[in-house]
Amino acid sequence: MALRARALYDFNSENPGEISVKENEILTLYSEQDIEGWFEGANSRGERGLFPASYVEILKNDATPAFNNSTSGDAYQGQGTRYANTPSSGYDASYKIQTQVDNFTKAPASNFSTFSPPTHHQQNYQTSQGSDDDWDDDWDDSSTVADEPGVVGGSLQDYDGNGPSTYRVTTSSMSRGGNAQHAKSSATVSRNLNRFSTFVKSGGEAFVLGEASGFVKDGDKICVVMGQYGPEWQENPYPFTCTIDDPTKQTKFKGMKSYISYKLTPTHTQSQVNRRYKHFDWLYARLVEKFPVISVPHIPEKQATGRFEEDFISKRRKGLIWWMNHMTSHPVLARCDVFQHFLTCSSTDEKAWKQGKRKAEKDEMVGANFFLTISTPAAPLDLQEVESKIDGFKAFTKKMDDSVLQVNATISEFARKQITGFKKEYQKVGQSFKALGQAFELDQQAYSVGLNQAMAYTAEAYDAIGEYFAEQPRQDLDPVMDLLALYQGHLANYPDIIHVQKGALTKVKESQKHVEEGKMEGPQADGVNERCNIISFATLAEIQHFHQIRVRDFKAQMQHYLQQQIGFFQKITGKLEEALQKYDNA
Amino acid sequence: MALRARALYDFNSENPGEISVKENEILTLYSEQDIEGWFEGANSRGERGLFPASYVEILKNDATPAFNNSTSGDAYQGQGTRYANTPSSGYDASYKIQTQVDNFTKAPASNFSTFSPPTHHQQNYQTSQGSDDDWDDDWDDSSTVADEPGVVGGSLQDYDGNGPSTYRVTTSSMSRGGNAQHAKSSATVSRNLNRFSTFVKSGGEAFVLGEASGFVKDGDKICVVMGQYGPEWQENPYPFTCTIDDPTKQTKFKGMKSYISYKLTPTHTQSQVNRRYKHFDWLYARLVEKFPVISVPHIPEKQATGRFEEDFISKRRKGLIWWMNHMTSHPVLARCDVFQHFLTCSSTDEKAWKQGKRKAEKDEMVGANFFLTISTPAAPLDLQEVESKIDGFKAFTKKMDDSVLQVNATISEFARKQITGFKKEYQKVGQSFKALGQAFELDQQAYSVGLNQAMAYTAEAYDAIGEYFAEQPRQDLDPVMDLLALYQGHLANYPDIIHVQKGALTKVKESQKHVEEGKMEGPQADGVNERCNIISFATLAEIQHFHQIRVRDFKAQMQHYLQQQIGFFQKITGKLEEALQKYDNA
Repeated sequence: MALRARALYDFNSENPGEISVKENEILTLYSEQDIEGWFEGANSRGERGLFPASYVEILKNDATPAFNNSTSGDAYQGQGTRYANTPSSGYDASYKIQTQVDNFTKAPASNFSTFSPPTHHQQNYQTSQGSDDDWDDDWDDSSTVADEPGVVGGSLQDYDGNGPSTYRVTTSSMSRGGNAQHAKSSATVSRNLNRFSTFVKSGGEAFVLGEASGFVKDGDKICVVMGQYGPEWQENPYPFTCTIDDPTKQTKFKGMKSYISYKLTPTHTQSQVNRRYKHFDWLYARLVEKFPVISVPHIPEKQATGRFEEDFISKRRKGLIWWMNHMTSHPVLARCDVFQHFLTCSSTDEKAWKQGKRKAEKDEMVGANFFLTISTPAAPLDLQEVESKIDGFKAFTKKMDDSVLQVNATISEFARKQITGFKKEYQKVGQSFKALGQAFELDQQAYSVGLNQAMAYTAEAYDAIGEYFAEQPRQDLDPVMDLLALYQGHLANYPDIIHVQKGALTKVKESQKHVEEGKMEGPQADGVNERCNIISFATLAEIQHFHQIRVRDFKAQMQHYLQQQIGFFQKITGKLEEALQKYDNA
Repeated sequence: MALRARALYDFNSENPGEISVKENEILTLYSEQDIEGWFEGANSRGERGLFPASYVEILKNDATPAFNNSTSGDAYQGQGTRYANTPSSGYDASYKIQTQVDNFTKAPASNFSTFSPPTHHQQNYQTSQGSDDDWDDDWDDSSTVADEPGVVGGSLQDYDGNGPSTYRVTTSSMSRGGNAQHAKSSATVSRNLNRFSTFVKSGGEAFVLGEASGFVKDGDKICVVMGQYGPEWQENPYPFTCTIDDPTKQTKFKGMKSYISYKLTPTHTQSQVNRRYKHFDWLYARLVEKFPVISVPHIPEKQATGRFEEDFISKRRKGLIWWMNHMTSHPVLARCDVFQHFLTCSSTDEKAWKQGKRKAEKDEMVGANFFLTISTPAAPLDLQEVESKIDGFKAFTKKMDDSVLQVNATISEFARKQITGFKKEYQKVGQSFKALGQAFELDQQAYSVGLNQAMAYTAEAYDAIGEYFAEQPRQDLDPVMDLLALYQGHLANYPDIIHVQKGALTKVKESQKHVEEGKMEGPQADGVNERCNIISFATLAEIQHFHQIRVRDFKAQMQHYLQQQIGFFQKITGKLEEALQKYDNA
């Protein structure tokens, strides 16, 4: 017999996958295990989907052991506790999500204050740390592997403040009870009910609602300052770059396993470290998890086959160089601990590496808590101006994304045409000149010989020009495409970043309304406003950074492209001039 | 009742259209009008086709007025006389051939000595003087128009020697009767029976057999000299060139008729004359008729529609310029009377024009008689060497023809690709840069503006480069194609020229054999040999001229092509450099 529940409040579905329920409506549950605070089931109209677990009470007299086959996986160990009428407080390692946690610390039972959300998922990028480059072969006995595409492993925060330079920060200005009434108020007023929304997952909501808390070390402090063009990340006082060289194939287990190792040399240490793709991948996952409104550059895509082929290695190296460039150029990313660990930890000191790795994975200043580390100028931003800037940027990213797609398609095709068609056309011209020259050679009178030789040279010149065309895209179009690929990654990140900012703004508006309606106290609304202000500063700083680096990159790349094109056409001209000279004495 | 004839000798068909007949076989004739010495009819096996008129006698008792509907045309006026058992001596204006003759002088009835063959038909070129450019609208009331494509009008020769500077030449060393027995001997031993063979039509055979005779004026003498590379035409002591400018549309009959007039200015007179396409066409027909072993350059093709369109006019003018270049470059063609008349006769003096025109059309030194005008070095050529050279040249023309075809097809396609595909590709790149630049323009911060402007300029540059590609073939490939077209004409002429030479060589071999067999006297064979020697000298001189002008033309054209290509790529480079500079302050 089916598990049944009664709706305690009205709930109107707002997202795909959700269903609306009416107060007192009897619902069918597919499982009494909630999924991050949501139940899956059907309403009285037969619609199937999700609704907030806190909005219903399970009808116990009907209850039978749940037939939980539909949602349980191998890791479905029932760690989550079902809280009737209240959202689940913990981040359950359920719903086929395997979290990568070294020290799993059970969160306190208080419903909201310790909610540690997963980071927002960056579209189109899979952060799994699985099969590629033998990720599963070493140093990770205590960690499990997230092999579910599109789902980022999240860590539960460790509550222990440690070290002398940390201080405790809490943004929680509300004391909350576990009663349903409060849940209702909170849920309908200030909480986004879709646990899968980026605003929620990124920790943005939790932060805005004052639920983030943690100890911020001095070294973790991140400053947004007012620059010439608006808010911007404080510059990295110790800028550096990092080269990536000599991808070499390494083997271990007596040649049973192979991987490619890259030599990284950061300018600030001048000390070379060897890193593999899996290390980049691991780092990337840490960064995505940690920074909710920073566009972490995507690392080059995985490739299952041909990953030891020269072309692929070269292409990946170029992608990693671009990635590294964006990392070291970013004032926040460049300085963060996990990146520095990655860049500087000796490749041979396994113990140090593991220590740093575990520290990074235990980092509590991720997601919602990341915002705690941000310090902003004293003067708050104008909300309307922020909204207008964000909207403008949203339009910008949309249009840039479209045109990047167009440029990419166009120059891919252009490259293909040069490699095939253009080459063929010029070489066919060469071949026809060659044939004519060979016909002419049947006449070996003295006055013919010069022309015959010049014709033969001209034929070779056109053959060579055909080759030039085929080789050229590698010199000029490929680098443009590499840049575009990187920016496509950024552009895919921004919808989520904008979503977080928009979510925060919405919260501010809601809280203002609630104050007007007398449902919320002023100071509480002020807190929401202040925290939203922090998110706004961070978002605008990130946008500013994006524009600046975009202008820098595209300027440099267009210059490079044009220089290459000029060199290309000059090379052709030179070849033709050589051919022309052959006729001087013909 | 059918007209019947009896075969006097065996005749074995050697060419398509001919049928074999046996001595005494009774044949059906379709007409008692012979066609250039051939009857059309059927043999006793029912095969239909041509056989030599001289091989049969018409059975008079069976004779009825011929049902001559199958071969007669409007001009079929029975001017030819049927000579039973003997070939027709005259060139009948029958078989749908309309000859363009102002003074039709009936040829004497002697069978062979006055045979005036039509000129050889130059492959692929139609020398009709019909519909194009309103040929039929003026100055030719006494001439009819040949409107049958592929058939060249021929004039009957005028026997009157006139003027004090002419002297009579005859090569005839044989006195021939009109009896059938002689016809047999001559036909089976020394005459090519296919009246349509070029050797026969060109007059080559008639000349070799000593049947040509005429008065050669001093001014008509053409010298072949021994040059560095073998026999060559004596250089024109008064070389000149001729420009063709300002094709303009003219109208007459109050605008009812339109034509294009070209301004010709020869350097040796510096006096401008206006000529129309029909004049070129008429001149061309005269030249083809007159010169059996000279490759007369083809004039540009006719075009029925669009002949007043700018592109067509420009293309035709270029073709005429090439043609003129080859005319003035040729030591024999440049100096001949009809060409000089064409170049120098005032366009407004209609009377002078008509006089010169009629004189040219009455010129007796055409075809077989042309060879009379040639004087050669004293030392005869080695027959085997000549044969080897001719064979080599035959192989050369074949290979050159193939490769010219290949070059032409290749560069036509290359031009098409540049005009369509290449242009499109570069402009698509421009458009995609433009779109990206426009996306970037949504960000109007000060540091973005420079890049945005540079991107817009780059987009325009690629658009312009696309146009460059589309415009370029007109500058470089079109002239090459014009040259190739001219040479395709020459190459189409050479099989016939070689055929004449080969025919003459065969006659020499035959006559030598006959001398050995006692069927021919030594002096008679010597005469054949001497006349063949003249043809050989002329042919080798013409080949030498062809090679020299070919080397000159292709050298110049390849240089022009490469210069244009260099200029083209430099123009692109310049445009790209302009674009690159825009980034300097971006």
